[in-house]
Amino acid sequence: MALSLICPTKYSEPWVDAMMAVDPSLDLRIWPEDGNRAEVKFALVWAQPTGIFSEYPNLQVIASMGAGVDNLLQDPSIPVHVPVVRMVDPTLVRQMGDYVLAATLNHGRQFPDYMQQQQWQPLAPRNVDRITVGVMGVGQIGMSVAKRLRAVGFQVLGWSRRPKTLADIRVLVGQQQLSDFLAASEILVCLLPLTPETENILNAQTLGQLPKGAYVVNVARGNHMVEADLLALINNNHLAGACLDVFRQEPLPQGHPFWSHPKIVVTPHIASLTDPTSVATQIVENYRRMLAGEPLLNQVDKQRGY
Amino acid sequence: MALSLICPTKYSEPWVDAMMAVDPSLDLRIWPEDGNRAEVKFALVWAQPTGIFSEYPNLQVIASMGAGVDNLLQDPSIPVHVPVVRMVDPTLVRQMGDYVLAATLNHGRQFPDYMQQQQWQPLAPRNVDRITVGVMGVGQIGMSVAKRLRAVGFQVLGWSRRPKTLADIRVLVGQQQLSDFLAASEILVCLLPLTPETENILNAQTLGQLPKGAYVVNVARGNHMVEADLLALINNNHLAGACLDVFRQEPLPQGHPFWSHPKIVVTPHIASLTDPTSVATQIVENYRRMLAGEPLLNQVDKQRGY
Ligand SMILES: NC(=O)c1ccc[n+]([C@@H]2O[C@H](COP(=O)([O-])OP(=O)(O)OC[C@H]3O[C@@H](n4cnc5c(N)ncnc54)[C@H](OP(=O)(O)O)[C@@H]3O)[C@@H](O)[C@H]2O)c1
Ligand SMILES: NC(=O)c1ccc[n+]([C@@H]2O[C@H](COP(=O)([O-])OP(=O)(O)OC[C@H]3O[C@@H](n4cnc5c(N)ncnc54)[C@H](OP(=O)(O)O)[C@@H]3O)[C@@H](O)[C@H]2O)c1
Repeated sequence: MALSLICPTKYSEPWVDAMMAVDPSLDLRIWPEDGNRAEVKFALVWAQPTGIFSEYPNLQVIASMGAGVDNLLQDPSIPVHVPVVRMVDPTLVRQMGDYVLAATLNHGRQFPDYMQQQQWQPLAPRNVDRITVGVMGVGQIGMSVAKRLRAVGFQVLGWSRRPKTLADIRVLVGQQQLSDFLAASEILVCLLPLTPETENILNAQTLGQLPKGAYVVNVARGNHMVEADLLALINNNHLAGACLDVFRQEPLPQGHPFWSHPKIVVTPHIASLTDPTSVATQIVENYRRMLAGEPLLNQVDKQRGY
Repeated sequence: MALSLICPTKYSEPWVDAMMAVDPSLDLRIWPEDGNRAEVKFALVWAQPTGIFSEYPNLQVIASMGAGVDNLLQDPSIPVHVPVVRMVDPTLVRQMGDYVLAATLNHGRQFPDYMQQQQWQPLAPRNVDRITVGVMGVGQIGMSVAKRLRAVGFQVLGWSRRPKTLADIRVLVGQQQLSDFLAASEILVCLLPLTPETENILNAQTLGQLPKGAYVVNVARGNHMVEADLLALINNNHLAGACLDVFRQEPLPQGHPFWSHPKIVVTPHIASLTDPTSVATQIVENYRRMLAGEPLLNQVDKQRGY
């Protein structure tokens, strides 16, 4: 009865330390040296080698080490009956909020412009409390980010798949209200999960519906964005610029036009990092629930894709 | 019984429009064409020619068009018995808060560093909720800024001349607690008025007491800062950088080392602008109070200098 950590691109030590601190009796193994895989019932994974799950005949739960499960769910070796869970974590949520507040206030108070222009030339000021920020995806992260944007003074609008009722923040719903949502969003913040329905959702047709001078913040996944469409809309001055943390190819290749673009701020997928010590308890709790046959925390709808 | 607008460097039209909208019966004149100056009882001023007040024998009130009165009070022609009032305005306060939130979150989430480095290289992340911001001057503006910084998640410390009691924010007091205040401030925000006591207060001796890696935001007055001392402390890596809106000489001269410095963000004194429509009511109200012999709003202590 073991857990295996399958994370070729992540440094496993802090995860092991954090989980063993919660429950020193865990039989926690690290792929690829995880011994007899028939003993592994719980896999904690990030960027696993595709197909790997067929090597674990008695798997009962797969847990993503992050909030997103887009990459994980593409693996055809996930057995149909095995549930997938993900991280929902206040530290992760707060960090994302700090990033989005910085990016939006930055734009609102024109810091990137002032940092570019390097001369004494006051710009026509913008009033943060008159700027409407549209948050695409108001789930665990987007909802908190939307509330913090509102608290700081922005006007805020949300967009989701299913209706939501929220004090102070109107949430538009589905494809039928997407145009209204876009037309009102002077800053667009993407916090959608990546699914077949949301892939390439930021494209010429949708971004073109943002008001002239709008600003785009993508902190979800690179594959939400048709990068050439964004560039074209910035270069023809329909959009004022963008702040991007995620890209179709990561690391963003040297020479990519985003790097040197004066109106694009690039960060290397650091908006929000899962802190092992902050999530260890929920992992161990899910392991306990699995053993006890109780309902799992933060289970993903594999059909829906998030 | 007239008011005169004395503001050689400001465009007067929006001020006239805003005040006439509040009270169309005002006898509002614009210097230097303000007619018989013996009729002027109320002067609304910004960057007045030094000595000008001796030309107004019946002046009863001088009103600064901004929050700061440092320049105004240096004029020896202000009659001893004439009170000076200034602007205290929620729009001005909010704008300053937006600026300081942007500057501090920017630093907290390392945007200036990422914008400089232009390559895929994640930096050791900082947690905004573990950063202590020290706000120097917790008056009308500093107090609101301190509360907003706290609401966004920073740890916040204040510093003022007289003791203050505040939920959640400790305020240290006077010269005797300045060293403790500085030693704890990982981001220092200056929102002091410029007075003989606070001139040059940001110098090698005080900035050197900030913890290593600290960041400085000056949005008060350029003469608070000994610019060469700041530069030396950034260049020897004691300080991480600075965000500056005010300078000893404004416009900041071309070729000044701040312009091209990779660790200094420069904005052209735009952190917070007085909006005539937002303050017109308080000006007209002070004019009314003057005529009625009632206590004035937002009166400055000329002796103290703020
Ligand atoms: N850059 C980074 O460092 C970083 C870090 C963490 C997470 N992320 C990304 O952030 C994403 C969001 O995380 P989360 O935890 O907030 O996800 P979540 O709780 O699953 O929320 C997803 C939200 O998106 C909405 N949504 C999904 N499909 C939609 C569609 N087709 N049309 C309209 N709305 C749709 C959902 O609507 P309903 O509410 O109606 O279901 C929900 O509001 C993750 O998937 C991950 O990719 C990035
Ligand atoms: N960059 C811009 O665009 C911009 C725009 C507006 C204003 N400003 C600047 O911001 C300044 C502050 O405005 P405000 O309206 O907040 O002023 P305020 O209400 O007069 O508050 C001044 C604060 O500084 C403290 N203080 C003054 N002298 C001190 C000393 N020697 N030691 C310690 N603390 C001292 C005061 O302490 P007590 O509370 O104990 O009296 C008070 O807390 C203005 O004077 C102006 O220069 C800049």
